[in-house]
Amino acid sequence: MSDDTGAAPIAHPDAAGVLSIDAMGGDHGPDAIVAGLALAVKTNPAMRFIVHGDEAVLSAAIARRPGLADHCTVRHAPDVVAMTDKPSQVMRTGKNTSMWSAVDAVHSGEATVCVSCGNTGALMGVSMVCLRKLPGINRPAIAILWPSRNPSGFNVMLDVGADIRADPDDLIQYALMGMSYARNGLGIDRPRVGLLNVGTEENKGRSELREAHDRIEMLAADNGFEFVGFVEGGDIPGDRVDVIVTDGFTGNVALKTGEGTALFVRDMLGEAFRATPLSKMAALLAMSSLKRLSKRIDPRRVNGGVFLGLNGTVVKSHGSADETGVAAAVGLAWNLSKSGFSDRLRARVAAATATLGDTE
Amino acid sequence: MSDDTGAAPIAHPDAAGVLSIDAMGGDHGPDAIVAGLALAVKTNPAMRFIVHGDEAVLSAAIARRPGLADHCTVRHAPDVVAMTDKPSQVMRTGKNTSMWSAVDAVHSGEATVCVSCGNTGALMGVSMVCLRKLPGINRPAIAILWPSRNPSGFNVMLDVGADIRADPDDLIQYALMGMSYARNGLGIDRPRVGLLNVGTEENKGRSELREAHDRIEMLAADNGFEFVGFVEGGDIPGDRVDVIVTDGFTGNVALKTGEGTALFVRDMLGEAFRATPLSKMAALLAMSSLKRLSKRIDPRRVNGGVFLGLNGTVVKSHGSADETGVAAAVGLAWNLSKSGFSDRLRARVAAATATLGDTE
Repeated sequence: MSDDTGAAPIAHPDAAGVLSIDAMGGDHGPDAIVAGLALAVKTNPAMRFIVHGDEAVLSAAIARRPGLADHCTVRHAPDVVAMTDKPSQVMRTGKNTSMWSAVDAVHSGEATVCVSCGNTGALMGVSMVCLRKLPGINRPAIAILWPSRNPSGFNVMLDVGADIRADPDDLIQYALMGMSYARNGLGIDRPRVGLLNVGTEENKGRSELREAHDRIEMLAADNGFEFVGFVEGGDIPGDRVDVIVTDGFTGNVALKTGEGTALFVRDMLGEAFRATPLSKMAALLAMSSLKRLSKRIDPRRVNGGVFLGLNGTVVKSHGSADETGVAAAVGLAWNLSKSGFSDRLRARVAAATATLGDTE
Repeated sequence: MSDDTGAAPIAHPDAAGVLSIDAMGGDHGPDAIVAGLALAVKTNPAMRFIVHGDEAVLSAAIARRPGLADHCTVRHAPDVVAMTDKPSQVMRTGKNTSMWSAVDAVHSGEATVCVSCGNTGALMGVSMVCLRKLPGINRPAIAILWPSRNPSGFNVMLDVGADIRADPDDLIQYALMGMSYARNGLGIDRPRVGLLNVGTEENKGRSELREAHDRIEMLAADNGFEFVGFVEGGDIPGDRVDVIVTDGFTGNVALKTGEGTALFVRDMLGEAFRATPLSKMAALLAMSSLKRLSKRIDPRRVNGGVFLGLNGTVVKSHGSADETGVAAAVGLAWNLSKSGFSDRLRARVAAATATLGDTE
């Protein structure tokens, strides 16, 4: 992975390699999350966790996984954020929740990256309150990895739902943050960045998109990325681009449409294989190849939306994540922690904000 | 199919069963389009066409298909709209194009529905100039059929790109037009209509969506449809809803994301089957089942965006449509022609516009 800005990480030195885990969020309860930690540690034995939630429940769950206790510090938090809780309510009264405690450990410098399977709106709200926005960032964004035809296997798309609006300034910041994420998270030296639109001609789309187009283009050379201009929905799983920039409304619809379509095709494929005795036999023969395919497009493997634009990094795992999904989110958090991503992103945004000031 | 409004069709009586075909648009040239007509006639021998374009070329192409000449009247048009032509330019100077001639035959009442594979923007522009918007309609929309888990096999989504903006009035009109299309095109008596958003809670999303939500809800009972409220991207290929209403920017991104994802999964599946000798054998065994799947999700089978909100119906086929795709678009045009869709839609919009006037 290339150095993003040359800035030295400035996090608390003891925090290196420590992840902060909200163990009470998620549809499958703390057991699935602890199982995910055990799975993640097998791949990266250097991982250390601060695990937030009901101490008795968590200690017992951790004790059932041989060796896992050596990697964990449990921090008691009596309350839990429910999936139906309103973000505004959690932001006012959620200080005793496992979610708040988990984000706060990044704020205090005890951990580098926080992982939670909880309520997205509440997690973004708590993250905004605890970590605050980076100087120069108006709207933080949620970035996801999308299975694609690219050699890395993925594209980055943002925002997928932190905010339903984005003005040209926001889209420019998304381009810079997404580019930094692609560089540090996917190891792409010179990411290709595209702006999502309904056509690729420069005169297409809403006026805020045309303005963002021209201003991102001006930033590309100085910030070490290539701007490919407007891209379309079909490019999201394609190989023309590494980073797709859009507002959170459009990004969220695209994400859910893509997931829904992939699931639909997968279910239709299952039906096709169950249709006749011959096709059932074929399914057996092709089992290992189909498993590879299934793995390639399995949303659990790319589990983890990353909140960008805050003083600290938060990974949002799917609420429905099982141990494989949790391990994927934890693995992503680990990679971002190791690369010093939070500090690199901070420096990148600061440098670009200065440049933007110059050009305006 | 149920009667939509009880209004009698008012089109030119000789036009019944006559489709107007722009035979010069499309990436594969007039031969592919004429081949598509020949294919469509096999299913519906009552079809009659007015075929617009270069008379010498078209007469020769038609003569090569045994029996097809009996179904066709060729109308000479010397010019062709190119895929790269600007809509505004075509609207000013395109009177001698095959596209203009084809749309004009609907305006003059010689044909009921027009089909073109040409440039979408130009086709919408020419359609607006020739046919004019229906009274009460501010922004016409493009509606498409989307493969879904519903018994009919499809959902209707609109707008997918006629306009990049939609205010609450437009979204309400889209709901009514989409509902009428689902009733006449898919034969669904009481379509379920949903409004695309980033969550299903009533307090979610942009203010114009919340306003449209409440106003569509008020119209549902009197207009014979069910309003399911907000739906998400994952519902587009789902079975919760028959008609998905959204603005043309979001709809276009969703459409292309869905197509791109389906294509990506299909290609990965092909790779999986080519991976090992065993999986190659499996592919042979499962051939017929996979072909059925492939047909179910083949975009060519649902080829045809329908322009709604004009005085007459225009079907836009994919530019890259081959004969199968052209035949599908022509088949769709035929069904809409037979159901008297243009007149039913006109009456539906007129009745609802009167109701809207009452409730405002």
